[in-house]
Amino acid sequence: MQVILLCGGAGKRMFPITGDKFLLKFLGKTLLEHQIEQALAAGLNDIVIVGNQQNIERLNEIVRKFPSVHIKLAIQREPSGIADALITAQKLIENEMIVVNPSDIFEESAYAMILEERKRGSASSYILGTRVKNHFPGAYLVVDEKKDIHHIVDQPRRGEEPSDVVSIVVHLHSDAKALYKYLKKGETLTDDAYKQALEGMLNGGHKLKLVEYGDFWGSIKHPWHIFAAMEYFLDCSEASIAPSASISESATIEGGVIIDENVKVLENAVIRGPCYIGKHTIIGNSVLIRDHSHIGAECVVGFGTEIKHSYIGDGCWFHRNYIGDSIIADRCSLGAGTITANLRFDEGKVAIESDDETLDTGLIKLGAIIGAHSKTGINASIMPGVRIGPNSLVGPHVLLTHDLEPDKSIQLNTHNTIIERKMGTDC
Amino acid sequence: MQVILLCGGAGKRMFPITGDKFLLKFLGKTLLEHQIEQALAAGLNDIVIVGNQQNIERLNEIVRKFPSVHIKLAIQREPSGIADALITAQKLIENEMIVVNPSDIFEESAYAMILEERKRGSASSYILGTRVKNHFPGAYLVVDEKKDIHHIVDQPRRGEEPSDVVSIVVHLHSDAKALYKYLKKGETLTDDAYKQALEGMLNGGHKLKLVEYGDFWGSIKHPWHIFAAMEYFLDCSEASIAPSASISESATIEGGVIIDENVKVLENAVIRGPCYIGKHTIIGNSVLIRDHSHIGAECVVGFGTEIKHSYIGDGCWFHRNYIGDSIIADRCSLGAGTITANLRFDEGKVAIESDDETLDTGLIKLGAIIGAHSKTGINASIMPGVRIGPNSLVGPHVLLTHDLEPDKSIQLNTHNTIIERKMGTDC
Amino acid sequence: MQVILLCGGAGKRMFPITGDKFLLKFLGKTLLEHQIEQALAAGLNDIVIVGNQQNIERLNEIVRKFPSVHIKLAIQREPSGIADALITAQKLIENEMIVVNPSDIFEESAYAMILEERKRGSASSYILGTRVKNHFPGAYLVVDEKKDIHHIVDQPRRGEEPSDVVSIVVHLHSDAKALYKYLKKGETLTDDAYKQALEGMLNGGHKLKLVEYGDFWGSIKHPWHIFAAMEYFLDCSEASIAPSASISESATIEGGVIIDENVKVLENAVIRGPCYIGKHTIIGNSVLIRDHSHIGAECVVGFGTEIKHSYIGDGCWFHRNYIGDSIIADRCSLGAGTITANLRFDEGKVAIESDDETLDTGLIKLGAIIGAHSKTGINASIMPGVRIGPNSLVGPHVLLTHDLEPDKSIQLNTHNTIIERKMGTDC
Repeated sequence: MQVILLCGGAGKRMFPITGDKFLLKFLGKTLLEHQIEQALAAGLNDIVIVGNQQNIERLNEIVRKFPSVHIKLAIQREPSGIADALITAQKLIENEMIVVNPSDIFEESAYAMILEERKRGSASSYILGTRVKNHFPGAYLVVDEKKDIHHIVDQPRRGEEPSDVVSIVVHLHSDAKALYKYLKKGETLTDDAYKQALEGMLNGGHKLKLVEYGDFWGSIKHPWHIFAAMEYFLDCSEASIAPSASISESATIEGGVIIDENVKVLENAVIRGPCYIGKHTIIGNSVLIRDHSHIGAECVVGFGTEIKHSYIGDGCWFHRNYIGDSIIADRCSLGAGTITANLRFDEGKVAIESDDETLDTGLIKLGAIIGAHSKTGINASIMPGVRIGPNSLVGPHVLLTHDLEPDKSIQLNTHNTIIERKMGTDC
Repeated sequence: MQVILLCGGAGKRMFPITGDKFLLKFLGKTLLEHQIEQALAAGLNDIVIVGNQQNIERLNEIVRKFPSVHIKLAIQREPSGIADALITAQKLIENEMIVVNPSDIFEESAYAMILEERKRGSASSYILGTRVKNHFPGAYLVVDEKKDIHHIVDQPRRGEEPSDVVSIVVHLHSDAKALYKYLKKGETLTDDAYKQALEGMLNGGHKLKLVEYGDFWGSIKHPWHIFAAMEYFLDCSEASIAPSASISESATIEGGVIIDENVKVLENAVIRGPCYIGKHTIIGNSVLIRDHSHIGAECVVGFGTEIKHSYIGDGCWFHRNYIGDSIIADRCSLGAGTITANLRFDEGKVAIESDDETLDTGLIKLGAIIGAHSKTGINASIMPGVRIGPNSLVGPHVLLTHDLEPDKSIQLNTHNTIIERKMGTDC
Repeated sequence: MQVILLCGGAGKRMFPITGDKFLLKFLGKTLLEHQIEQALAAGLNDIVIVGNQQNIERLNEIVRKFPSVHIKLAIQREPSGIADALITAQKLIENEMIVVNPSDIFEESAYAMILEERKRGSASSYILGTRVKNHFPGAYLVVDEKKDIHHIVDQPRRGEEPSDVVSIVVHLHSDAKALYKYLKKGETLTDDAYKQALEGMLNGGHKLKLVEYGDFWGSIKHPWHIFAAMEYFLDCSEASIAPSASISESATIEGGVIIDENVKVLENAVIRGPCYIGKHTIIGNSVLIRDHSHIGAECVVGFGTEIKHSYIGDGCWFHRNYIGDSIIADRCSLGAGTITANLRFDEGKVAIESDDETLDTGLIKLGAIIGAHSKTGINASIMPGVRIGPNSLVGPHVLLTHDLEPDKSIQLNTHNTIIERKMGTDC
């Protein structure tokens, strides 16, 4: 049984968080590493990764972290969907395989369940699915009471969903050749060619079976979905403090905190878990970190900063900031006194507005979403749900009420009046 | 002996602090409750409260807190002054009574002194009075060396005061019928009908005697008078921590601090008394509360906030604020980084300015006065002595230099310039 | 052997730090006191100070601190350079003298070396000099391999330096009469009359010898040169806490901290040395002081302030400030939330710009330079390298991007919009 990890796609809805989603780090490891480890834990040690020209180097780095595992790499020319990825990897495929989207986070029970079904059943393919209460922008499965799949409907409109079961891309194909036959039939490889191939199998008399899954599933489509993934990783880890970490005696560390190697926690800092603090990060004096926060490696969280329920990348610098319900990518730096607002005056849901769309995040509390290599000046203020493109600057004293594009600098136009100082009367 | 508590009037000079003054809470109880308790402590357990249509429900709630005491309620149609209140309550009045304004704060010694005078003397009425050094906007008493009152002058102009003795509304009438006779004589019930009745008694040969009082007297006419009342209650209470309160080991609590039930004090917080912390309030990490501060129930004083010599109502939320010499009514919330300035550059007295008046507060240090249900955004700044009407919003990053009316929202007009980021040269 | 301390000159490049440089205080003493003590420690107890009309009173005060030492005072009419100073003091001069500029900071080894050379040699004068790597705006010495001086070149242009040895004004004249002969020859006393006299001696056959010095030398020409002086004094002092100081048990004091008399350090404050805290200064709750900081006497460093690598004068008040790499003269006060930025977005060197010059400070990290008796309001922001003239005001919420002249007040022009609050929709 092979596991095919689809690493060739591109996240389209993740602005300003750029880069492949499976390279997002949790607990010091990329999502892809977590996926490989999870497959290995499930006994699946024949792994194929389908990457692309841009990320192949990074993928090779990750593969090298598993020297004793047999991982093969295939390279997609362009990110043209699952069907193209599978055709690209065809030479590496033997007979049985589980196709996995590594940006989806699921528990080990998913592998256990789908392998168990395969052992007992005689279907051509086993499709992991889960019941949803709200609309989800993915493929819906129409199944009968025996969990045989009859139809697959990709991205139905809200209100037109044919069922409440959506597909999670953990698909076991016990007969890869059959799948490839139907994949080949498609002339152009559109985005939904894979779904068409599955439909083709159904029409051709193949049996596709739903494996119904009810444990944690995290699908990162929009940046704020990172919160759920972060909470999952934090909640399912045990508290630990690396022996190389140095923790001041006057610091307080409570409740499910994972402190990685060479972290320094200075005087009067308080970390109230679940939280993760990455390698070589410094938590400064009188800092408060709380409520499911995840801080990357080599960060400096300076004096008097508070980080609440936020995801922070590597190499970020903070100083007297309040960072609440925010996502901040690698190598950002916030000036002293920069505050992210995370709650509207009317305590309504925070929407994200751009030129061409308004996205309902469904969140009452949402702070800033900041792309990599961006900086803010002193005493800047960022409104709830505002996105700052990578490599941008928010000047000192700016009140940022709308999104800022990448590679931009926004600066305050100062309007002051200078007068002679009249002693004793001025205020 | 009956005590008549006048609860029908309305404070006219209290903007933006709305609501009846005797409903202001100190140490977790309304002023009215303190008054009832003080009367009971003086052995006066026959109490009549004169309320109005608007506050009768609230008064009933308070009365129910004293199930074993005989408290009668009368309802004034309109807040038309003391005379109207007494006529409204006439059916409930027996013969001897002490008429009390429960918004005036005085010590138990006042009752002891006036009752003692009554026991020894033969006057019709005994009027509590105190000597003042500065002008006071109330009734002045002209007395002889025997402390017999000869004239009552209501609200003389500054410089035209006929004496240095002003009346405190703790008036014992040993012959209520006589008083009522003169009250009836007034045809229209103007604001000073009560004073005219007292003058009528004098002219009719009745003896009115001054009972000279020298202990604490706090009259709340303007919002900033709340400070003196707060200091009085804090200073005359003993330090205590409710058993249900939870105090972090790294918190410091020093010097006359009263911590009420279910309060939580988090790490590295410092409370330097005299201070009061109301029920269920949370004092967050690295918070400093000091110098006669009084914080209501169900507040959250978030990380890094400093509260100095301020009166805070119930249900307020703070976060990284500096609140100095300020009065903040119930259910307000200040955004992270909001600061109240409490000192002019010239260190002169803070005046309160509105369209039609300039009030000299006499205070060098005075911060903001904020009505109930108001909010401020992040990094807002409020100048000394500025009043914010109830139910108003001060937007993020606003510098508020003048009063804000009720039900208003003031927002910053942002003026920024966005340019392409030139790498390596921008600052 | 006499020591002549030249205290008559005026620093021209020190704006906004006014006043004589030798009156700058380090470790609670003026530079001049340090100089006197250093001379005494070297066995030089015959001291002449040349002051001027303006500073004579202050000099007398300092002289009175050394009651057992024979210190004579001479008064220069105008600050007309070293030659004029020496002529002014001529009557007090005996035969051998060391002429010293007390604004230059050097180690005791300088005296030891120059006296040792004098003992062994037969030159008329011994000139302390040091080798420099970068251009220095002073006098360059042309010497041979025997360290005999052949020429003195005052202030050559960059690139035209005749050697790498510059003169430090610690000049031992073993034959004062010879020097005076050449000083007299100058008709007008220009700024470089002293240098001309030395050249005259050379031409007249006198021997001038270089004493090459390699230990610490700090020359305060620009305000930011104070940093090096501060670091020197901090590094060469031993940690100590005055018995009269009161330090909270929850405060942390680490690494070379000198705490002077009657200092108070409150709860959860952290001082990470080398640092100096002057007499009667209060270090408030949750304050952080670090990285070579020097704080004068009678300051109040209020709640939540961070001071990093800064020099603070006497009588300053801070409150929730970040003061980084800054110089703040006596009697300043910063409003709560005022932040000094100390790093450009591009992490380039901070230049100081005024109408007529751009000064390259050579520093990547430089905050504000603030003259005496200035104040800032709440939530003000000051950009890197900005200078604020003495006795000026920076209003609340001002973003100060350029220098502010003395005796000025800069205030924000507010631009806000007030609307009716629409319940439930506003943000």
